Amino acid sequence: MNQKDPYLLTPGPLTTSATVKQAMLHDWGSWDDNFNGMTADVCRRLLAVAGGSDTHVCVPMQGSGTFAVEATLGTLIAPESLTLVLMNGAYGQRIGKILDTLGRAYIAIDKGDYHPPRGDEVAEVLAANPAIAQVVVVHCETSSGILNPIEEIAEACRQAGKRLIIDSMSAFGALPVNVAELPCAALVSSANKCFEGVPGFGFAIVDRALLAASAGQCHSLSLDLYEQWAYMEKTGQWRYTPPTHVVAAFLQAMKEHEAEGGVDGRLARYTRNRDRLVAGMRELGFRTLLVDEWLSPIITTFLSPQSPAFDFRRFYDAIKAHGFVIYPGKLTVADSFRVGCIGQLHDEQIDAVISAIAGACQELGLPLPVPAPADAPDDLKNA
Amino acid sequence: MNQKDPYLLTPGPLTTSATVKQAMLHDWGSWDDNFNGMTADVCRRLLAVAGGSDTHVCVPMQGSGTFAVEATLGTLIAPESLTLVLMNGAYGQRIGKILDTLGRAYIAIDKGDYHPPRGDEVAEVLAANPAIAQVVVVHCETSSGILNPIEEIAEACRQAGKRLIIDSMSAFGALPVNVAELPCAALVSSANKCFEGVPGFGFAIVDRALLAASAGQCHSLSLDLYEQWAYMEKTGQWRYTPPTHVVAAFLQAMKEHEAEGGVDGRLARYTRNRDRLVAGMRELGFRTLLVDEWLSPIITTFLSPQSPAFDFRRFYDAIKAHGFVIYPGKLTVADSFRVGCIGQLHDEQIDAVISAIAGACQELGLPLPVPAPADAPDDLKNA
Ligand SMILES: Cc1ncc(COP(=O)(O)O)c(C=O)c1O
Ligand SMILES: Cc1ncc(COP(=O)(O)O)c(C=O)c1O
Repeated sequence: MNQKDPYLLTPGPLTTSATVKQAMLHDWGSWDDNFNGMTADVCRRLLAVAGGSDTHVCVPMQGSGTFAVEATLGTLIAPESLTLVLMNGAYGQRIGKILDTLGRAYIAIDKGDYHPPRGDEVAEVLAANPAIAQVVVVHCETSSGILNPIEEIAEACRQAGKRLIIDSMSAFGALPVNVAELPCAALVSSANKCFEGVPGFGFAIVDRALLAASAGQCHSLSLDLYEQWAYMEKTGQWRYTPPTHVVAAFLQAMKEHEAEGGVDGRLARYTRNRDRLVAGMRELGFRTLLVDEWLSPIITTFLSPQSPAFDFRRFYDAIKAHGFVIYPGKLTVADSFRVGCIGQLHDEQIDAVISAIAGACQELGLPLPVPAPADAPDDLKNA
Repeated sequence: MNQKDPYLLTPGPLTTSATVKQAMLHDWGSWDDNFNGMTADVCRRLLAVAGGSDTHVCVPMQGSGTFAVEATLGTLIAPESLTLVLMNGAYGQRIGKILDTLGRAYIAIDKGDYHPPRGDEVAEVLAANPAIAQVVVVHCETSSGILNPIEEIAEACRQAGKRLIIDSMSAFGALPVNVAELPCAALVSSANKCFEGVPGFGFAIVDRALLAASAGQCHSLSLDLYEQWAYMEKTGQWRYTPPTHVVAAFLQAMKEHEAEGGVDGRLARYTRNRDRLVAGMRELGFRTLLVDEWLSPIITTFLSPQSPAFDFRRFYDAIKAHGFVIYPGKLTVADSFRVGCIGQLHDEQIDAVISAIAGACQELGLPLPVPAPADAPDDLKNA
């Protein structure tokens, strides 16, 4: 990597390895065996990581992660069926927005920014609404960094006989998940998150029988996950032109993921990044949005210093001048910013970004420590 | 480029320059000014090439070219309006399929594989069906390589007061087009065709007033061209994660396009490729599907040798062994194969692919010359 490129402490696109980027220095024909072999290898590896080799299929989809989420919901959710959407941030809300656009009926449990939906609440709503056919949940709600307890939610679904669809965009690859055991009907993620590829496609790991029964249901030609799968099964090719270079980079990224010890290895590094970051930031006087129990090893939200001198753009620029890109907040209420733990980041970068943030606070004259926000729940005020 | 990579004589993905691929050796944050400046530069350049700087806007869309076509049709075509679709190959038919999926009514003029839709036929259908609000046509119908006469079709639309939407996927960047003068309400293309970028996004050049009046019309959240535009106008960012590396490669590709003399320069090289290819292939005894008048400088369809020994897969592999990737046919009737003229191809590669094809014919024992097909129209039989 060019040494002048800043490190991205963002939840994807993120800083990828030099070798992942170098995998893009070739051109492939989309009809060609060499390329189709790469696609097949990627799908086989993803299925294995998800624990779905015997029960599920992997279907890639061109576009950003949202495209893959919309493709999955549009293809799998029967037009007349009722869905329960679990929300605690922007990405859960986006699932509701997709269903609104598609004209699919849903009920929402909205927990705000600070708390996850719990298994018992889900069980209660499922019991009260027997018409619900599927539940959709975000694994790591990247807008706050909250880690939702998908195991207990899956258990509530299993007991009620409902299908579970997981948006695991920012978690899959770093947080263990087994789609066959959970069980989970579909899990959606994308190339540029915890597998550390570059952006350009997403993918769904879908229960084979469910997908096979979903022909003709999708609202879109391009986003029809069933048709993409059927075409790929028949020809080994993507239905429409694939992002060839991005796929090549992703295959390299998956090999590096495996070499790092797979999900376990990656989780260990990201957890170490998160712990080091949170400790260092707390030492500076920053406060996390969430209590420790729900902090993901993916991205952490910090409350902004309480001062008219705090302007995110200036704060961002001051930190970027030191070679680090952080991320704005995406909350409904509290003023905040986010720092990612994923991508090619190690102790050295974490320590350096903490220094850069300390420097930016001095430069901008920001007061520390940050007080607890007035609207925070009690458990957080005491954190 | 690695010397072992075959040359792609395919209509995109194609062989890109080494410098275009090297532009992907960096990571960008999608929130960052450096990246957003690249997006703005790309859009500004595309508008200028299309002659739409004063009248139109450029909206990029993640995914393959089909995604951009669907986004454009879904966003711009009012749900209750009637559309005329001009078809003479697979991509015109795909437009019909998109409208079927979206539940939008349309009338089709289907000319089969050999002939283009003409201005007078379009005028006639428009006169007979005053309810038609827009006409959709493919510029270069890549399935045969036919170059459709968009000027006379645009003139028929102008006279009847109908909007024209052009799928110029495989033509824009090499064939001159001026959206303001034609006029044309929307022109759709993608990164990996005549601008010689890598695949990962498409874009639409859309009449500003029409787009501004299209809020809330799209069937899809991800593919909503209006929302993508509105968000980009407000923030300078793509609405959902952009394929950052592909965008960087495309900006480099556009600079190289300009350095080659823009559309004129590229058209001259592609035309030279096409002429050299067709002359060499005819010398070997091959026959083009189309009469010279409709041969595009993008891709040429050749009829397959008439022999049980002709198996496209074996033919393809024999040619690939010489370092060249060609493309299968995509016709409804005649057995054929295609050779592209676009991408980083010059005399040397054209001469070498002709030799490789000659060698493959010998190896496989294929009889030449190829006879005219029984179903060919008279003008072609005499060609
Ligand atoms: C949980 C989650 N869902 C969906 C998305 C949307 O992905 P994209 O921006 O690639 O469309 C993101 C992006 O960060 C995400 O974190
Ligand atoms: C004229 C035309 N339209 C649409 C498409 C579809 O583009 P994509 O394969 O990128 O979806 C193509 C692809 O070659 C094309 O040539």
